Amino acid sequence: MRHVYCDNGSTSFPKAPGLGAAMGRHIDYRGYNISRGSYQDAYSVEGSVIQIREQLCHFFGFEQPGNVIFTPGATVGLNMVLKGILKSGDHVLTSSMEHNAVVRPLMQLSEQDVEWEEAPCGKNGELEPEELKKRLRPNTKLVLMLHASNVCGTILPIQTIGTICREQGVLFAVDAAQTAGSLKISMKDCGIDALVFPGHKGLLGPQGIGGLILSERAAEQMTPLIAGGTGSLSDKEVMPEFLPDKFQPGTLNLPGIIGLGHGVSFLEKEGMQAIAQKKEWLTKRFLEGICNMKQAVLVGKETAQGRCAVVSVDFPNVDNAEVSYILEQHFGIMTRCGLHCAPHAHKTLGTFPKGTVRFSFGYFNTEEEIKYVLDGIHQVLLQLKMGI
Amino acid sequence: MRHVYCDNGSTSFPKAPGLGAAMGRHIDYRGYNISRGSYQDAYSVEGSVIQIREQLCHFFGFEQPGNVIFTPGATVGLNMVLKGILKSGDHVLTSSMEHNAVVRPLMQLSEQDVEWEEAPCGKNGELEPEELKKRLRPNTKLVLMLHASNVCGTILPIQTIGTICREQGVLFAVDAAQTAGSLKISMKDCGIDALVFPGHKGLLGPQGIGGLILSERAAEQMTPLIAGGTGSLSDKEVMPEFLPDKFQPGTLNLPGIIGLGHGVSFLEKEGMQAIAQKKEWLTKRFLEGICNMKQAVLVGKETAQGRCAVVSVDFPNVDNAEVSYILEQHFGIMTRCGLHCAPHAHKTLGTFPKGTVRFSFGYFNTEEEIKYVLDGIHQVLLQLKMGI
Repeated sequence: MRHVYCDNGSTSFPKAPGLGAAMGRHIDYRGYNISRGSYQDAYSVEGSVIQIREQLCHFFGFEQPGNVIFTPGATVGLNMVLKGILKSGDHVLTSSMEHNAVVRPLMQLSEQDVEWEEAPCGKNGELEPEELKKRLRPNTKLVLMLHASNVCGTILPIQTIGTICREQGVLFAVDAAQTAGSLKISMKDCGIDALVFPGHKGLLGPQGIGGLILSERAAEQMTPLIAGGTGSLSDKEVMPEFLPDKFQPGTLNLPGIIGLGHGVSFLEKEGMQAIAQKKEWLTKRFLEGICNMKQAVLVGKETAQGRCAVVSVDFPNVDNAEVSYILEQHFGIMTRCGLHCAPHAHKTLGTFPKGTVRFSFGYFNTEEEIKYVLDGIHQVLLQLKMGI
Repeated sequence: MRHVYCDNGSTSFPKAPGLGAAMGRHIDYRGYNISRGSYQDAYSVEGSVIQIREQLCHFFGFEQPGNVIFTPGATVGLNMVLKGILKSGDHVLTSSMEHNAVVRPLMQLSEQDVEWEEAPCGKNGELEPEELKKRLRPNTKLVLMLHASNVCGTILPIQTIGTICREQGVLFAVDAAQTAGSLKISMKDCGIDALVFPGHKGLLGPQGIGGLILSERAAEQMTPLIAGGTGSLSDKEVMPEFLPDKFQPGTLNLPGIIGLGHGVSFLEKEGMQAIAQKKEWLTKRFLEGICNMKQAVLVGKETAQGRCAVVSVDFPNVDNAEVSYILEQHFGIMTRCGLHCAPHAHKTLGTFPKGTVRFSFGYFNTEEEIKYVLDGIHQVLLQLKMGI
């Protein structure tokens, strides 16, 4: 049976060509530590890490490579931002489409007298900037939101929101879990103070590595969630004040960083415009097919513009989980069914608690696969209707 | 020029044979996510992760695989334990030999009215259990200490301390950064409630992965430092109460976990006794050589018993950094000079703020290399004496 992977919103697969070999070579021949021992082999690895910090800066429209913090993934990065910036009495604004990687830390912070408010999004997950702006208060310290929904793919207007935040002197953080490596992002143009991204989704790197890029003003206001040895100022019992060390204790995930660099290099070679266009094209074809199916209800925007390649579908007269299950069992089509760790988003979209079947496409999916998936859905619905 | 790696205390190198290839294969052919989408390829990876949890439990003398939490390394694990367990008004005891991965988080917690006290260790870094016992108070919530010093290799009596803690109803956590994979550790026999270990040192795995194994009572008393999506109870805005999910949000570092499993499998094949014996033998030969050098002062125990393969040396009449530098430049011998992120340990040992040159050996070092290193030190000292 064929295997057609449509769960790139969870993790991309396949990864960038040659990723396993690149990381394997690093581990076997250059598996040293950096910022600790003073020897040439360590300096050589350190040089690679500095290069990758520069590469990420360039990739995300930012100018200070030292402000790139490597994280184990977006979840830790979001916790670092939220728990590092927000103190008792602060007000924080998010959209109503956030992932549990934001909702759950904010529930913890709410118990410590942080005031959290959600700007309500529309039925397609879209955010009207005015809805956010009118909720800003004198004690609003931070606005944090995802760039695109991991449930329905809707893109939020981060450039407009960034401008509002800059005007109001409020810190602005973006969770780019679904867009890093899929859409062009410029921290500078969007006024982003903290960009959080995973390495293993659109950036086509391995799981276990991600990044957090911080503006100077965000870095100054943040306290380190994780403290430990940095190989710098070792006589001091407190974290160094300079970056990246202030937020980068412990041994780095060096194979992961090498893998992340490999992924970004591949994207740069292909060109972000070509990548974004291909994903938009695949999404467009899929949306057209879904919108023509009577038994399928698209959740979110009907057009491929203004969204990323994440599409949620509800099948009203049948069990969504059964659709997902048969798609895999009979057609080898891999999807993700349920709430996608985003109960607030599903509440906004009106699909809570039932959830949806999510189809998320990657750069390596093909138009032919989209046809196969649409045909698979059609056949599954026929089977279920006939009670087979 | 030869390369002789003597910085295994920082990270082991080389890694377990075949590690790069094993991780590379996983990334290229099985790079899916788990606990999210419901498809066979994800279940297969999930099966491997469950197996590795079981393997780690067996390896560390524990019985509940679900209580194995994967971390990005020891630093995050230690932060999770300290910040998850200690609340305002609690008292915590450590040794006076701790790494900055413990000192720096505890300095942060001290600002939140956590009372931190160090049981003083002797001039070789050894801990008299009575020194700890007499410092226990009614509000002592946790005793945390390293298993062996990352500066001088001295092993602390964790079994005795574990028994004391059990008797007094105090939680006991162990930082096994220098001993996991080097010495046999049984959580059950030592009464350990939280075992923290990195994957990239003695366990011969890659950087970026480590573990935290929790007793039920520790898990119950700990709050999650990091919160986020778990792929479980996605309708809930708070972390699940069950393990490992309570402390395991976000996408797992799956290539790292596969690598960690590969490392542990190699250790099991070789046998922990053979590994410990070989390291002890190498350390013994090195200690004998150092103790015979008039211009070298050994810091810590003179015997290979009661210590791990980490040896600190001070060269009183010369610059330690210069010794370390020439060793590498002229002989290709890689060491780590300075304070090793452990100012408290160096204060205890009387080597603060100058620091030491640290030689740390691994399973792949040879007796011939030890001779080469000793000869190299001898020649460097001759050169420096003659002012060359």
